[in-house]
Amino acid sequence: MRLHTVLTSLAATLLLGAAAPLPMPAILSPQQIVDTAPPGAWQPVSPEDVLVMELATGQRIVIQLAPDFAPVHVANIRALARAHWWDGAGIVRVQDNYVVQWARMPEGQALPKGIDQHPPAEYDRPSAGLALRPLFYPDPYARQVGYANGWPVGSDGTRSWLTHCYGMVGVGRDMPPDTGTGEELYAVNGQAPRQLDRNIALVGRVVDGMPVLGALPRGTAALGFYAGPKQWVPIRTVQVAADMTPASRPNVETMQATSPAFAKYLDARANRRDPFFIRPASGVDLCNAPVPTRLAP
Amino acid sequence: MRLHTVLTSLAATLLLGAAAPLPMPAILSPQQIVDTAPPGAWQPVSPEDVLVMELATGQRIVIQLAPDFAPVHVANIRALARAHWWDGAGIVRVQDNYVVQWARMPEGQALPKGIDQHPPAEYDRPSAGLALRPLFYPDPYARQVGYANGWPVGSDGTRSWLTHCYGMVGVGRDMPPDTGTGEELYAVNGQAPRQLDRNIALVGRVVDGMPVLGALPRGTAALGFYAGPKQWVPIRTVQVAADMTPASRPNVETMQATSPAFAKYLDARANRRDPFFIRPASGVDLCNAPVPTRLAP
Repeated sequence: MRLHTVLTSLAATLLLGAAAPLPMPAILSPQQIVDTAPPGAWQPVSPEDVLVMELATGQRIVIQLAPDFAPVHVANIRALARAHWWDGAGIVRVQDNYVVQWARMPEGQALPKGIDQHPPAEYDRPSAGLALRPLFYPDPYARQVGYANGWPVGSDGTRSWLTHCYGMVGVGRDMPPDTGTGEELYAVNGQAPRQLDRNIALVGRVVDGMPVLGALPRGTAALGFYAGPKQWVPIRTVQVAADMTPASRPNVETMQATSPAFAKYLDARANRRDPFFIRPASGVDLCNAPVPTRLAP
Repeated sequence: MRLHTVLTSLAATLLLGAAAPLPMPAILSPQQIVDTAPPGAWQPVSPEDVLVMELATGQRIVIQLAPDFAPVHVANIRALARAHWWDGAGIVRVQDNYVVQWARMPEGQALPKGIDQHPPAEYDRPSAGLALRPLFYPDPYARQVGYANGWPVGSDGTRSWLTHCYGMVGVGRDMPPDTGTGEELYAVNGQAPRQLDRNIALVGRVVDGMPVLGALPRGTAALGFYAGPKQWVPIRTVQVAADMTPASRPNVETMQATSPAFAKYLDARANRRDPFFIRPASGVDLCNAPVPTRLAP
């Protein structure tokens, strides 16, 4: 914990002559497995499915959208970005260990044309058509958990749903279930609030920029809302990556669930054997083994 | 999510005459159950088991210590605070979704007299002597989870251990297991890194001030360490609450695991039926149902 220095015996043995005994294979940490995964382990995300939020500070938050799980909400969100809905909006709520939320203020403004004002409650979807890569450890919330189409999911065999893990992005709504249009979004900033699963539409995840969102000052009003406009964190723009120039847009990649690297990564997450660890857990929580994502160079 | 306005039917019915039909009982959220718990549901924590960290900004972080689980480390920590070890120390590491860590810098300074330089590996303890209040939902890490002596624990029947939930405080160490003295501590600031359970000594939890620690800027050096002394967040003092005047010290209370309020709280955490929710989860993760704590007025 103090140093976490990982002695890669591989690096050390490069200094030895050919006559040296074969080195023990290095035991890699999950991050090292991700860092050394071959190019074939990665798949690109369509720039139509990537949202880029730029704060007034110039900091960027990159969000991958999940049209396979919430197609109507995702279509709304793309259309809202293209209508510049969030240009000049703000982050208005940061509740510690719960969510960061952003909105165009004041609430209640007329939505641009073409937005579905009453999307269906896309809180889950049929399991049919999804290839589930199960995670074989017990889960307190769902009969089965695992990964499908690059996303963390819960399933009861018939229906499947995205799970409220750290960095997942969802659609704010009022009490009636059909009041969330996508105009107001939140990202999870703490322990997974999985009680929200199947109660709200999840539409994506932050793939770059959580250290920025995570470090925002906590709101002091009820439910972590900022006490007033002076506290709001101004957003310059939210764009669909496909609308940006190729040179300026981020190229998001996710690790393929079918790749050997992903299997190694999951095993290492559940059984830490890299040098710092004494006793592997023999298990891992779905939200503690997120699908690796990266921005391509 | 937008408003979370909880319509307490109780408040509404106060306006009605006595002839009005009996109101449906209000369905309380977990927080409302905590807020309305009777005085008997709470028990005071000894000020010998409370550490008060004051940052240079004047912000206070209050930590409850866990002598039942890590007595030698806790004795070291009390002695270090009394020797003013952390006065003028700093927060030197903030890794997003992992830990916030503080230390007297530079590392390697001689410890005060009376500090056990090689505490035993207090990573777990015998289950005998602990009254476990089980949480009857599956857990991906431990055969059994629940609450003991006011703390979240995992257990294999024979041994029990504190779990790395949000806000839990642990002892930084180097690679060899007996190198953590308590001189360098961390607090969990994201999804529970339960892979660390039984690999490191947990010694307590932050009971007040996580919104401050959680919002600290993330470090940009390897493992989230701050890049240099200019980034360190200065600590003015760390004191044992028992050494402070009664007027100035926080009085920490925790909810009794045997109280009806705690049973109601756990049930509500696992089965949200307050107005925003459509589908209760029928389960809850140990780290998503923390033992309620508060500062007494």
